[in-house]
Amino acid sequence: MIDRDQGVTAPQGFRAAGVAAGIKPNGKPDLTLVVNDGPSAAAAGVFTRNQVKAAPVLWSQQVLTTGSLRAVVLNSGGANACTGPAGFQDTHATAEKVADVLGIGAIDVAVCSTGLIGERLPMNAVLAGVDLAVKELGRGAEASLAAATAVITTDTVAKQAALTHADGWTVGGFAKGAGMCAPNMATMLSVITTDAVVARSTVDETLRAAVESTFNRLDVDGGTSTNDTVLLLVSGAAGVEAGPEDFAAAVTAVCADLVAQLQADAEGVTKHVTVTVRGAATAAEAVAAARAVAQDNLCKTAFFAGDPNWGRIAMAVGNAPTEFDQHKLDITVNGAAVCRAGARAAHRSEADLSGRDILVEIDLHAGEGVGTILTTDLSHGYVEENSAYSS
Amino acid sequence: MIDRDQGVTAPQGFRAAGVAAGIKPNGKPDLTLVVNDGPSAAAAGVFTRNQVKAAPVLWSQQVLTTGSLRAVVLNSGGANACTGPAGFQDTHATAEKVADVLGIGAIDVAVCSTGLIGERLPMNAVLAGVDLAVKELGRGAEASLAAATAVITTDTVAKQAALTHADGWTVGGFAKGAGMCAPNMATMLSVITTDAVVARSTVDETLRAAVESTFNRLDVDGGTSTNDTVLLLVSGAAGVEAGPEDFAAAVTAVCADLVAQLQADAEGVTKHVTVTVRGAATAAEAVAAARAVAQDNLCKTAFFAGDPNWGRIAMAVGNAPTEFDQHKLDITVNGAAVCRAGARAAHRSEADLSGRDILVEIDLHAGEGVGTILTTDLSHGYVEENSAYSS
Repeated sequence: MIDRDQGVTAPQGFRAAGVAAGIKPNGKPDLTLVVNDGPSAAAAGVFTRNQVKAAPVLWSQQVLTTGSLRAVVLNSGGANACTGPAGFQDTHATAEKVADVLGIGAIDVAVCSTGLIGERLPMNAVLAGVDLAVKELGRGAEASLAAATAVITTDTVAKQAALTHADGWTVGGFAKGAGMCAPNMATMLSVITTDAVVARSTVDETLRAAVESTFNRLDVDGGTSTNDTVLLLVSGAAGVEAGPEDFAAAVTAVCADLVAQLQADAEGVTKHVTVTVRGAATAAEAVAAARAVAQDNLCKTAFFAGDPNWGRIAMAVGNAPTEFDQHKLDITVNGAAVCRAGARAAHRSEADLSGRDILVEIDLHAGEGVGTILTTDLSHGYVEENSAYSS
Repeated sequence: MIDRDQGVTAPQGFRAAGVAAGIKPNGKPDLTLVVNDGPSAAAAGVFTRNQVKAAPVLWSQQVLTTGSLRAVVLNSGGANACTGPAGFQDTHATAEKVADVLGIGAIDVAVCSTGLIGERLPMNAVLAGVDLAVKELGRGAEASLAAATAVITTDTVAKQAALTHADGWTVGGFAKGAGMCAPNMATMLSVITTDAVVARSTVDETLRAAVESTFNRLDVDGGTSTNDTVLLLVSGAAGVEAGPEDFAAAVTAVCADLVAQLQADAEGVTKHVTVTVRGAATAAEAVAAARAVAQDNLCKTAFFAGDPNWGRIAMAVGNAPTEFDQHKLDITVNGAAVCRAGARAAHRSEADLSGRDILVEIDLHAGEGVGTILTTDLSHGYVEENSAYSS
């Protein structure tokens, strides 16, 4: 059972804090520290595929080549992206500061940032914030929520989830943003923790598979940001070994719940849309077709209008890099078979899109591949949030 | 010099008409006929790359394998897409009707449709409209404008252009829509005519090259519709041979002017955005990078806000399938060098985006490839038009 009142400190062996370091001009919390007290320090990370990578992404990719982490420091209020060599030095200095205060090596410290691209961070505030955060480190619901809160930007709520296995080990985590590419301040950051005992080789492959089937299936406005990062930290403090399949299921469940919270909190959203494609030649082609619908602005404005305009869906699927015969295309919207064999079937008025949830089911009849993408509508609120955002 | 008061009947040998056939419920003009009286009947077509192709696209692709056309019939008020075998029979019947009345073969008649996807056309109205249009066929400014007007859907104005070469031959044409993928009713249709004497082999390659560098470089909301069609008809009635290069230049100039009119008329647009990428490894990679910016909703909402948010531009380029080193990325917005070597340079306040036109120049410093894409902003008007569209 997922518990949304707990997060990164639900597993044993972790302490966390979230403080107001003065990075954000408005004085809200903006620096989070998560510490893994072990005994294990196994860790893995999945990073943005964007060719423009923020300094903290370049740093964290580098330190994670060891497969170990003792701490993660995250800041909101600035992405530290497109900041050149000086920005990378800022990230390095932040990791060194955390290492000094905790008595570990900088190579054990990952760094994540989120906020406006192209601006240097106020390093005095960041470094003083680390001192403050170390003093606040704790366990329990309060520390966990503080950690999840200090990373948010335009999010309206902090997002946490935890799950305890019957064998006595726990997976917890937080996330901020609204998808692998969110609107507005854009970045998706997530830290997942566990006290299970897990083979080191399992950690990386478990995280990669979980991210692929959860975070990478939420597509609010295409692409990935300069800072997107998901980290998995293993303390092993429960002293209980988790089987690889149980472990994968738990990590995936926590990630999936965080993704549902990200989708719900995307800016200006009025509809939660699930696009499932069946009958593609491969699963990858099914995902590509579902993504084509999820990224199509004509479909997204129709979803906003609650208009079951399946012609736009057919057009979007036709633009996907997915092979199919248009004369076999089936489209079902909220249970109404609006298109069968590439032509009109049930009248579109039979599809009721007045509620919050829209389910689009597409069958290409070209194979066995299945894939799902979660997305949102394109609303006035979306335009408002993303154009009102002051530079 | 481009003349926007003339169109498909500017070249000799062409007659045209546009009539209200009763296909649109509101009684506005909805059927256009263009007839090539020769002596040549050479023709070429470029069609949507969407896998879901409307019946008229399938028909016109088929008849154009001969490289000849004597007439084109176009209707607004219905796309005849996703209408199955019955819809294809409707297209065939329309071509047969035109052929009967004109005393030619159905194989000499192309058909284009635009409007809502998934609905059959009211064939009584279409067939009666053909009789009406044949009676109205004429030359001169009035006939040309009527032909350009009866194809429009959500366009606010008819779009024509003509150009006469010093040697005495002319290229003319009309277009409707707002790009190779337009918002709302989506389809882009264009008919280009010429009275030049042109080698048959030149016709097809000239049209393809012209479309690639004009219509295919306007990207309002990604993808291509089920019905997009550009046709080039050659009468040879001027009796003057056009050199291949002069002919290509004239066809491209007419297409480029029509594209500028399409961009200006895209729904809800407040900004005309030109994205030019230089220094890519190849021209194709430059176009791909420019297209990534043009399709990015975060960039498009920032354009709407007049916000020179170059971080979003950097992020969009980083998501393109284009190789570059982020530490060499230069971005210039309306002349202001906001990003140099991947980091902030001129302050963003130096870029004035208060006017209608926005020029984004990106240099990747990875080669010699150059490419440009025209696009628009993502405005409240866009959401309004595309969600208010009643199904």
